[in-house]
Amino acid sequence: MNIVILGGGGVVGQKLAQNLCARGHFKGKSITRITLADIVMPPATAGCDTMICDITNPASVAAAIPAGTDVIYLLAAIVSAHAEAEFEAGMQINLQGTMAVLERARALGTKPTLVFSSSIAVFGGEAPNPITDHVVLNPQTSYGTQKAIGEMLVQDYARKGFIDGRAFRLPTISMRPGKPNRAASSFMSSILREPLNGQEAICPVGPEFPHFYLSPRMCAENLVRGAEVAEEKLGQNRAMIMPGRIWTIQQLIDAMTAVAGPGPAKLIRWESQPEIERIVMGWRWDIRAGKSLELGLEADESFQDNIRYYLEDDLPRA
Amino acid sequence: MNIVILGGGGVVGQKLAQNLCARGHFKGKSITRITLADIVMPPATAGCDTMICDITNPASVAAAIPAGTDVIYLLAAIVSAHAEAEFEAGMQINLQGTMAVLERARALGTKPTLVFSSSIAVFGGEAPNPITDHVVLNPQTSYGTQKAIGEMLVQDYARKGFIDGRAFRLPTISMRPGKPNRAASSFMSSILREPLNGQEAICPVGPEFPHFYLSPRMCAENLVRGAEVAEEKLGQNRAMIMPGRIWTIQQLIDAMTAVAGPGPAKLIRWESQPEIERIVMGWRWDIRAGKSLELGLEADESFQDNIRYYLEDDLPRA
Repeated sequence: MNIVILGGGGVVGQKLAQNLCARGHFKGKSITRITLADIVMPPATAGCDTMICDITNPASVAAAIPAGTDVIYLLAAIVSAHAEAEFEAGMQINLQGTMAVLERARALGTKPTLVFSSSIAVFGGEAPNPITDHVVLNPQTSYGTQKAIGEMLVQDYARKGFIDGRAFRLPTISMRPGKPNRAASSFMSSILREPLNGQEAICPVGPEFPHFYLSPRMCAENLVRGAEVAEEKLGQNRAMIMPGRIWTIQQLIDAMTAVAGPGPAKLIRWESQPEIERIVMGWRWDIRAGKSLELGLEADESFQDNIRYYLEDDLPRA
Repeated sequence: MNIVILGGGGVVGQKLAQNLCARGHFKGKSITRITLADIVMPPATAGCDTMICDITNPASVAAAIPAGTDVIYLLAAIVSAHAEAEFEAGMQINLQGTMAVLERARALGTKPTLVFSSSIAVFGGEAPNPITDHVVLNPQTSYGTQKAIGEMLVQDYARKGFIDGRAFRLPTISMRPGKPNRAASSFMSSILREPLNGQEAICPVGPEFPHFYLSPRMCAENLVRGAEVAEEKLGQNRAMIMPGRIWTIQQLIDAMTAVAGPGPAKLIRWESQPEIERIVMGWRWDIRAGKSLELGLEADESFQDNIRYYLEDDLPRA
């Protein structure tokens, strides 16, 4: 199996690469090549090739997805607050870029498996609670709109038989290693990560703020399982919510305290950030995965697991 | 008010132009100009300018939507069976064309009103009945996918304040004047229109086949009312089902017989057309408009009205 991960330099792409390398096989066949491609050169990763790919450039996309590619993970995107601040960049990268990747996958003529990372940011507005796989997409950000459109395209390319497409709406991934990014959800990792590293972090929402989370480790596992599901089990809608769990900010902090003691929580500063609040208050949290659970994807057991995964997987590297 | 109708040569565009000319005012101001633009020159229409516009060509779009345009109706599209047979043409016209129009509207910098004609073809697949404004879009055609994406873009451009956008999911419009077209729904008019004109027509589905209908006259009226709704009443989702009514093929025929006597129904030949059946069987019919009814849009009272509108509005011209 020849696997390409677009967005392979990101947190989820890196975890996915590690997961794939560790298992060595995929859909019952041995993995012959894993390529991590990203807009900047991904970090050297044992067992993987790395390359630069600009998904808005069809020639660059064709170079990253050569003939013989079996599986394409399309994780590359600019994040929510970035796409909100720079409308044209979001349309170019998150929409035209996705279209370029789909066109390349179609041009292969070999019906590759394509896994698209959508987001719970596709939900919002007037849709009634709870949010399920059958609820209208009413995104309240350009990022969410671009992800919703990507889902629609993956679905139609799959229906036409050009690809074996699947789209998973990722919960907010926490806790993420690395540095804060321009995602409006960035604080949902940094209020844990920075204190665990002995640094202050700002929380722009109150402790009761609820949200829908998944750990990076389980997200990578779900992306593998989601790709391995037999196509005939996918039904007429290839886009679905990836499992997650609902926690409040206070529950996140309590989990950190349970695992790492009372010190880190004291490093959180509670400080309003109106632009971030405006975006995240428009997000939905009363979300129930359905089809993906039936297909064998899973949520974390507890947020303490999410904290432990960070300490096991990421802290040693930091 | 300076109004541009893209797709102004089509049945709905023509009815809309007649409606606007007859009322002479729009949003409380007098109409100064109505331009009908289409890929082939629209028929000369009293009170309207006509021009050719290729929505896939940004320069052509800019010429059709000059500075000072107050209202843009985006009705131009290739229809369902056409977009299904020619994937690239559908993507180019229905998706890239819509994007070109939206970009031109944004470039005006004056927040024009933009009314997008979506379709009930956005619904399908796994969504549970009944279909409402809050149900997930799961189109089973490329046409439906492209319309769904158009809605998403209209919504986001409106949310960003680039346009005052509204998208209405049109029921199947029947009965349409003119000739059969490549819409899979074409027979839903031709089994009435051709017999009323003394000609045979083929019905590819059985008499119990249910569907969701609106007359061209009421559709045009709804497109005007829908544009005139104050923006602050639109809420967080600018895309909604246009009112319609559910009828079976037999009810259509009974209405024709009630209005025009028993002769026309004898000219219908019942004959299977597998490709058309495959498409229309994937369409949803248990559809309930919600927000649009609250905003003052309406369905026809009975299908006999639809027949009478054709006899009053269209038969004399044929």
